[in-house]
Amino acid sequence: MITDFQEIISTNVKGMKRSAIRELLKLTQDPEIISFAGGLPDPELFPIEELKKISNEVLDSEGTKALQYGSTEGDTKLREILVDRYKKDGFDISLDNLVITTSSQQGLDLVSKIFINRGDTVICGLPSYLGGLGAFNAYGAERVGIPFDDSGMRSDLLENKLEELKKQGIKPKFIYVIPDFQNPAGITMPEKRRIEIIEIAKKYDILIVEDSPYKELRFEGKSQKSIFALDNSGHVITLGTFSKIFVPGFRIGWVIANAAIVDKFVVAKQNTDLCTSPFVQKIAAKYIEKGLFDKSLKKIISTYYEKKKVMIKAFEDYMPEGVSWTNPEGGLFLFVTLPGNMNAEKLFHKSIEKKVAFVIGSVFFCNDEGQNTMRINFSYSSIEQNIEGVKRLAEVIKQLM
Amino acid sequence: MITDFQEIISTNVKGMKRSAIRELLKLTQDPEIISFAGGLPDPELFPIEELKKISNEVLDSEGTKALQYGSTEGDTKLREILVDRYKKDGFDISLDNLVITTSSQQGLDLVSKIFINRGDTVICGLPSYLGGLGAFNAYGAERVGIPFDDSGMRSDLLENKLEELKKQGIKPKFIYVIPDFQNPAGITMPEKRRIEIIEIAKKYDILIVEDSPYKELRFEGKSQKSIFALDNSGHVITLGTFSKIFVPGFRIGWVIANAAIVDKFVVAKQNTDLCTSPFVQKIAAKYIEKGLFDKSLKKIISTYYEKKKVMIKAFEDYMPEGVSWTNPEGGLFLFVTLPGNMNAEKLFHKSIEKKVAFVIGSVFFCNDEGQNTMRINFSYSSIEQNIEGVKRLAEVIKQLM
Repeated sequence: MITDFQEIISTNVKGMKRSAIRELLKLTQDPEIISFAGGLPDPELFPIEELKKISNEVLDSEGTKALQYGSTEGDTKLREILVDRYKKDGFDISLDNLVITTSSQQGLDLVSKIFINRGDTVICGLPSYLGGLGAFNAYGAERVGIPFDDSGMRSDLLENKLEELKKQGIKPKFIYVIPDFQNPAGITMPEKRRIEIIEIAKKYDILIVEDSPYKELRFEGKSQKSIFALDNSGHVITLGTFSKIFVPGFRIGWVIANAAIVDKFVVAKQNTDLCTSPFVQKIAAKYIEKGLFDKSLKKIISTYYEKKKVMIKAFEDYMPEGVSWTNPEGGLFLFVTLPGNMNAEKLFHKSIEKKVAFVIGSVFFCNDEGQNTMRINFSYSSIEQNIEGVKRLAEVIKQLM
Repeated sequence: MITDFQEIISTNVKGMKRSAIRELLKLTQDPEIISFAGGLPDPELFPIEELKKISNEVLDSEGTKALQYGSTEGDTKLREILVDRYKKDGFDISLDNLVITTSSQQGLDLVSKIFINRGDTVICGLPSYLGGLGAFNAYGAERVGIPFDDSGMRSDLLENKLEELKKQGIKPKFIYVIPDFQNPAGITMPEKRRIEIIEIAKKYDILIVEDSPYKELRFEGKSQKSIFALDNSGHVITLGTFSKIFVPGFRIGWVIANAAIVDKFVVAKQNTDLCTSPFVQKIAAKYIEKGLFDKSLKKIISTYYEKKKVMIKAFEDYMPEGVSWTNPEGGLFLFVTLPGNMNAEKLFHKSIEKKVAFVIGSVFFCNDEGQNTMRINFSYSSIEQNIEGVKRLAEVIKQLM
């Protein structure tokens, strides 16, 4: 081995930490543990029989193309289908505005690669999705967090911060938002707030990165227009994925943006993985074409809705006074605030002993806040496990109080 | 759209060019064109019927895992199979030394992300694989090229260059080599040269990145030990892939290195795409387990050997005096030198008119050399197309002489 390995690694990678979620998840490998930790879909909902049939159809009808290299932009059929769906949602786009990525995480990696020079500033929410924070950090970004209220990122504080940064000569590269059922906070941004944020982005001439993995998973309440569709002027980059609404195992995501920006994604993706697997893209396209996607999405929504309602009921039944939680209109997570100064990391280790796991909330804060918060997933485990897990968690919290 | 888009993109991405191959390939979309341009496998060799059966078996036996998120390191079964195969080839490794990547191109991206700070130097061959050069460039590397002789990268010139750089206080991050059937030069490095390069790397305490996509595609001559296996002391990072020896459409590659380096790949991959598709990894593992991989590899080798022999014969039959070409013992490419000062880019545009395409050789040189060279692929087109294409190419060359 070379003598100075630790010295020769790049500055950006020196600053990378192993994902906190990932390391904590290692403690949850014990099959007896009820895990509220990951953001995993319910595997019972995976359309295994349909995919057996469709994978064979794809191999029969276009096997030589499915198994060959594909274009960097992605499978044309799949892109057309996605563009059509987004157009119905008010997106003013054509094929040039959409590129397939190898998961939405690759979208976050490429947006960082394209815009971030070491030391550049990006704006994110307090809290924000850990994989976004990690991707920005991997390119040496300074992450500036904006606090939330019940409507998500506070537009007044966002404007104050941008004004303050402007005075320092700093122009952030983009504002990172997850407008629907925010991960981890569970908050959905109402249209008014979305428009305020667009206006601020335009005023300061800054891009918005709209991360939208859960939008289709709405159980109740009124669907909100995407920030992209409310803008339609090229200020917004929207990231989508099949991971939560179809299967994560295909690793298919996409990026929608102004054509000049999409062109940069294509160039950057060429050097990153050349193309996303045409095989899984063609299976996904056929799955949607046959109408199976929309059908199964309904089932996913009703299953998760039921799971959420039971979870909320269990929280109401078992949690002691002083614990509070969000009641999201969709998505996969509750965000829980512990009483007073109770430390979620300490609670985590006690909970593992009682065979229940979650993600400590502080990992979602780029400023180390949220020490008394935790993220609870309700999509992965069964309803019975969810109830039992909340019981166990409530016990441990009571002991620590 | 924001007003200063071209200004806010990162310095690294500003320095990226659209892949020259990719742009030239656009000119070859015409189905009448015989393309020697890509590095595509023969789609007739894709094991479509076997993969229909195996994809169903995977979905039946482990569908919920195949369609769920997987571990960042990769599918354990597939990693075990690969580790066992490499051990038989003299690699002193265990499971901790191998991480699955989303194609070998991702291996090249991650090795760049891990080691390259903007302005760092990396050593590459004159010529080198374009995707490697592009990946290093995407992180702002200075690429220093070392000329070749019949044994590949010249060790004397490598040592001179490292000494010269040392005097300037520059220590390159790694030496990039493609030891078997080098892309594009077609040269295989003999063991003596491999050992010389290892000794130099050790003397100057520099890593070697051994890109090895073609090693198994040997038609004739004696198989050479991998640089990794000749070293076995942690100085070498080896990249492998299924793209040329199974199917490119699965986008599965892997990196083999010292465990401390593999750990950095895992951390960097977390932020890049979380994990490679478990679905295609499980299909690949089962395909190898059933013995189908080794069986089909024999067929791939014999098919490409035949194609190469016919191609060489066609070159001998049709090319005018002054054109020379390599006769590789394996791989996918001939490297051709045109007479005198004939410009390959000019030839390319004339050739497109005659419905035959190739890649101009200069794109493989980080110093703009090789203006009178071209890379010719013999794996993709049929034998008849290969002969006809060489005829057409010879005609155009004669016209330009």
